[in-house]
Amino acid sequence: PVSRLPEVGTTIFTVMSALAQQHGAVNLGQGFPDFAGDPALLDLVTEAMQAGLNQYPPMTGVPALREAVSRKIERQHGRRYDPDTEITITAGATQALLTAVLALVHPGDEVIVLDPCYDSYVPAITLAGARAVRVPLRVDDFGPDFDAIGAALSPRTRAIIINTPHNPSGRIWREDEREALTRLLAPTEVLVISDEVYEHMVFDGQVHASASASPELAARTVVVSSFGKTFHVTGWKVGYVAAPAVLMAEFRKVHQFNVFTVNTPMQHALARYLAEPAHYEGLPDFYQRKRDLFRAGLAASRLVLLPCEGSYFQCVDYSPVSALDDEAFCRWLTTEVGVAAIPLSPFCATPPQRRIARFCFAKQDATLTRALERLAAL
Amino acid sequence: PVSRLPEVGTTIFTVMSALAQQHGAVNLGQGFPDFAGDPALLDLVTEAMQAGLNQYPPMTGVPALREAVSRKIERQHGRRYDPDTEITITAGATQALLTAVLALVHPGDEVIVLDPCYDSYVPAITLAGARAVRVPLRVDDFGPDFDAIGAALSPRTRAIIINTPHNPSGRIWREDEREALTRLLAPTEVLVISDEVYEHMVFDGQVHASASASPELAARTVVVSSFGKTFHVTGWKVGYVAAPAVLMAEFRKVHQFNVFTVNTPMQHALARYLAEPAHYEGLPDFYQRKRDLFRAGLAASRLVLLPCEGSYFQCVDYSPVSALDDEAFCRWLTTEVGVAAIPLSPFCATPPQRRIARFCFAKQDATLTRALERLAAL
Ligand SMILES: CSCCC(=O)C(=O)O
Ligand SMILES: CSCCC(=O)C(=O)O
Repeated sequence: PVSRLPEVGTTIFTVMSALAQQHGAVNLGQGFPDFAGDPALLDLVTEAMQAGLNQYPPMTGVPALREAVSRKIERQHGRRYDPDTEITITAGATQALLTAVLALVHPGDEVIVLDPCYDSYVPAITLAGARAVRVPLRVDDFGPDFDAIGAALSPRTRAIIINTPHNPSGRIWREDEREALTRLLAPTEVLVISDEVYEHMVFDGQVHASASASPELAARTVVVSSFGKTFHVTGWKVGYVAAPAVLMAEFRKVHQFNVFTVNTPMQHALARYLAEPAHYEGLPDFYQRKRDLFRAGLAASRLVLLPCEGSYFQCVDYSPVSALDDEAFCRWLTTEVGVAAIPLSPFCATPPQRRIARFCFAKQDATLTRALERLAAL
Repeated sequence: PVSRLPEVGTTIFTVMSALAQQHGAVNLGQGFPDFAGDPALLDLVTEAMQAGLNQYPPMTGVPALREAVSRKIERQHGRRYDPDTEITITAGATQALLTAVLALVHPGDEVIVLDPCYDSYVPAITLAGARAVRVPLRVDDFGPDFDAIGAALSPRTRAIIINTPHNPSGRIWREDEREALTRLLAPTEVLVISDEVYEHMVFDGQVHASASASPELAARTVVVSSFGKTFHVTGWKVGYVAAPAVLMAEFRKVHQFNVFTVNTPMQHALARYLAEPAHYEGLPDFYQRKRDLFRAGLAASRLVLLPCEGSYFQCVDYSPVSALDDEAFCRWLTTEVGVAAIPLSPFCATPPQRRIARFCFAKQDATLTRALERLAAL
């Protein structure tokens, strides 16, 4: 059959994880922890299953989990989302993103994405019959370029997808950048889809400039996040969406005919676990320590460290080590050096101007040390 | 925002479950068991979690589960699907259906659905930018009308969605009906999406005429099924898709940007559980007994029993009891009689010609008995 996504192959995360496994490489590619989630959280799932909570939950999500999400966001950003009409539990953030795009974007629309970006955004836009308009982030620091975004706005622009902390660069939006976007969009009806899955991984005392923290911006924004990333259980595939009721009503129309609902026992477990703020408030420190350990080790290598403000990714400029393009370099690093990384180019429309590879440091210290030993030898 | 699905409200299953809960009605509406899954299956999930299987599984599904699905289908229907290239694990059957439609149907295409049908089919087609062509099933027995299907075929027909055992009627396709469809489509390139989620609930020794059992039909078919329904854990949201590699490659392109992957510990548990055919081969008898119990009870009421060949649904003609339309009748039954049912009309393009309500009998015997007492008083 003629393909709906002729340019799409298998996502780079799948490719590199398979290659890492095949060659016994230390897998710092695909973003997932190699340590266990909290045993207390796992026990809550068992309890929920044993209590018979194994049938369809409400389509919008288990009420206690929606309530816990609402309280978390209020605590973080001072905005109260109504759990009944403004929060929906999703099968992870990727499902939330596709659902938001399908629900809000019409055939023939334009959607702005900031390049480099997570590789699901553009296919989601294509599947909605719309056109992705790729606006480059600044080459030096991956910050938003509001002149370029402004120039890309057109009467057909339906939405913009933003992402902070940013995958792959870890760049965090400043609050004044969020305000600049708010002002830029004020005269328009452009919607915002804000991918905030690394919201709990911000370092050096910085603030996560969530779209929910700006009432004006939040009024046009679908915020997307992920429990898998926050609680070290990426395989559970549970996330959430927060949006004003009028947008959420449209989101739910598509959600109910996409996944319909999300895993019941995991939702009940997460509801109880999330109710305790200590379970997420320690995360910045937890990951900052790993970042610092990893950066200290890399400083001894010939790889050039880029800043890492947030997320669990560390990018490096590998040009002192290799003249290969980034995909070839990451394959070589995986098969010959024994450390898997993710190239920048799958996040980009055109070959990147810099030689950048991304490492995930959501790993046990011993795993990071093993990788660092191999990288030091480069 | 202008809606992408202006005619869609909240799915009837959600509406009726909420109404049932509000009024303390016995909920025979939404299709889910009110009994627990096998404790051995729940324990396998706990084991998987404790073994640290909580991170992203492979995008296509846990290999052991794909292998177990392949062996199950071969055992059932004699066709071998390659687990690596022809089986994908999904977040339930609804997600599988939307993904198949988005992957295979192009804007401007036509997709034939057989009316009445499950309420996600038409919105999925709409979201793909295509047009649903609704062909009525025969009014008397809900069987396929091949003259009508033939007349609906056009050069724009990309696919047809079929469903056996049928929701809501329980009608099972005969093998000669499957052959008739095969012959009808032979001169065309029309694809088939075959919703077989009730595959293990076929009664009176009948055969489930799976599309996979016909090599010619299977070559153009995406078969969709659900572990939630098969193993009494509808809230786990795990299903599967089987299709020839060329169709599966397109399916996976969309799947990876929809849910990306599916719950890891549940997949591992299901892999071990499914490997034992006894875990599904007893299902027809298990549900036939419930059907017989429920039908025997209803025979004492003024509701007219329709045939129930498969699925876990029993339809009745309620015209001796009420002249209300089916939605009003089901609401009345829920709030005044205390038994929730599902009306036929949300499955139909136009108001149905018969007064039909659907009951789900996947319930504990005590639940069925309680409902029957109330229905006997009608
Ligand atoms: C869902 S793919 C893997 C995780 C991820 O987001 C990443 O590695 O960037
Ligand atoms: C996913 S909605 C509820 C289950 C179902 O398929 C039905 O009741 O028809």
